[in-house]
Amino acid sequence: MYTYQILIEYVGTNFVGWQIQKNGHSVQEILQKSLKRLMKKNTIVFGSGRTDSGVHAIEQSAHFKTDFKIKDKITFMKSLNFFLLNHNVSVLNIKKKSDNFHSRHSAKKRFYKYLIICRSSPLTLDKRRAWHIKKKLDISLIKKGARILKKTKDFSTFRAASCGAKTPIKSLDQVSIKKTGNKIEIIFASRSFLQQQVRSMVGCLKYLGEGKWTIKKFREVAFSKERKYCAPPAPAYGLYLQRVKY
Amino acid sequence: MYTYQILIEYVGTNFVGWQIQKNGHSVQEILQKSLKRLMKKNTIVFGSGRTDSGVHAIEQSAHFKTDFKIKDKITFMKSLNFFLLNHNVSVLNIKKKSDNFHSRHSAKKRFYKYLIICRSSPLTLDKRRAWHIKKKLDISLIKKGARILKKTKDFSTFRAASCGAKTPIKSLDQVSIKKTGNKIEIIFASRSFLQQQVRSMVGCLKYLGEGKWTIKKFREVAFSKERKYCAPPAPAYGLYLQRVKY
Repeated sequence: MYTYQILIEYVGTNFVGWQIQKNGHSVQEILQKSLKRLMKKNTIVFGSGRTDSGVHAIEQSAHFKTDFKIKDKITFMKSLNFFLLNHNVSVLNIKKKSDNFHSRHSAKKRFYKYLIICRSSPLTLDKRRAWHIKKKLDISLIKKGARILKKTKDFSTFRAASCGAKTPIKSLDQVSIKKTGNKIEIIFASRSFLQQQVRSMVGCLKYLGEGKWTIKKFREVAFSKERKYCAPPAPAYGLYLQRVKY
Repeated sequence: MYTYQILIEYVGTNFVGWQIQKNGHSVQEILQKSLKRLMKKNTIVFGSGRTDSGVHAIEQSAHFKTDFKIKDKITFMKSLNFFLLNHNVSVLNIKKKSDNFHSRHSAKKRFYKYLIICRSSPLTLDKRRAWHIKKKLDISLIKKGARILKKTKDFSTFRAASCGAKTPIKSLDQVSIKKTGNKIEIIFASRSFLQQQVRSMVGCLKYLGEGKWTIKKFREVAFSKERKYCAPPAPAYGLYLQRVKY
């Protein structure tokens, strides 16, 4: 058996998310079907993690095991991408890995990007690619909030009720904020994230930035470990899985 | 009569371009129809210039004259954008101007952005928003080409046969190249451009970057004043009208 890692870009808009579900198309399903067409064998593709319905990926990482030997990587990728063409999924690279490589368990760090655009007019070029907020947000408050998030250890506040993780204790290595014109880009990095953690944190940062919450309130919510105090999670379509580091 | 300037963002994909045409929807037409619904009067919208079919705008500028007095700018823009919602056109701002303001004639400088992505895999997130080139381009050669373009005075080489401009003599104030990963962004600035000038220049820069042309050949073509020597114009969907300065 050979172990191959694939790097994948996708537009999340028309997917129920990464993981196979009964109620619609998933990226995993499309990949598995395309690999089957190519290798004539059922193949399970393991992702580095699930992405929610609507979430995009700049570079998702996944792996599969097969006894099919990929001799010509370029041709293999071209054929695979041909099958994926109409699904807005693109395989960026494929790499042979050692047997013990696992896209999820071997991951050392995950990077997510969240994109916000503050303006009154509707979005066109960034429609379904960013969270459209109709008022200005106070960027200095958001930066203060980011520093509080970095100090948080127990992320129970920011964890979906359906999250299956063993522990809510995480170490958030990076929360960086970049503002360019009316665009706000927030990068989060951590070994792993709880379900809806990034979107929940962004929802709270938005409450802070629009003045709905004070810094004091934000800190209380973040450290409360109580889901009920969390702001509504930011929409999925502003979120991008940026990269997985091994 | 009042003169109003509007700033407009749009996705060019489903339009025949800015200007009203018989063979499909244009941005001008959609704007005029929406203004009519709002002001109950036929109104002609004058753009700063035509954009080709498929070309996007980050900030197109236009104006119209009307005896309708816009009392509440915010409400007017909201209503206008409501009518434009399904067309991927968004009015970013509206400004009252003096009687002699003309979006085209008063323009001092126009900025265009051209986006290229070099990679073998198909595009998903940037599909129809960038020129997908499957090989790497030599960025240092493209920069040299840009310097030659800046020295060009007569742009006949880069002018569509159907161009109606009085003279091919232009002064190209800026051609700047920015490379981020596999993305190449080229910004062009000039008082005005000939028809298909930007796309023709990008087509030639691409020939240079992929090694099909030498610098010597590129210079000969640029200075030849002969359309027949021009490379095929770059596709419209990688081009963005970025801003018009007055």
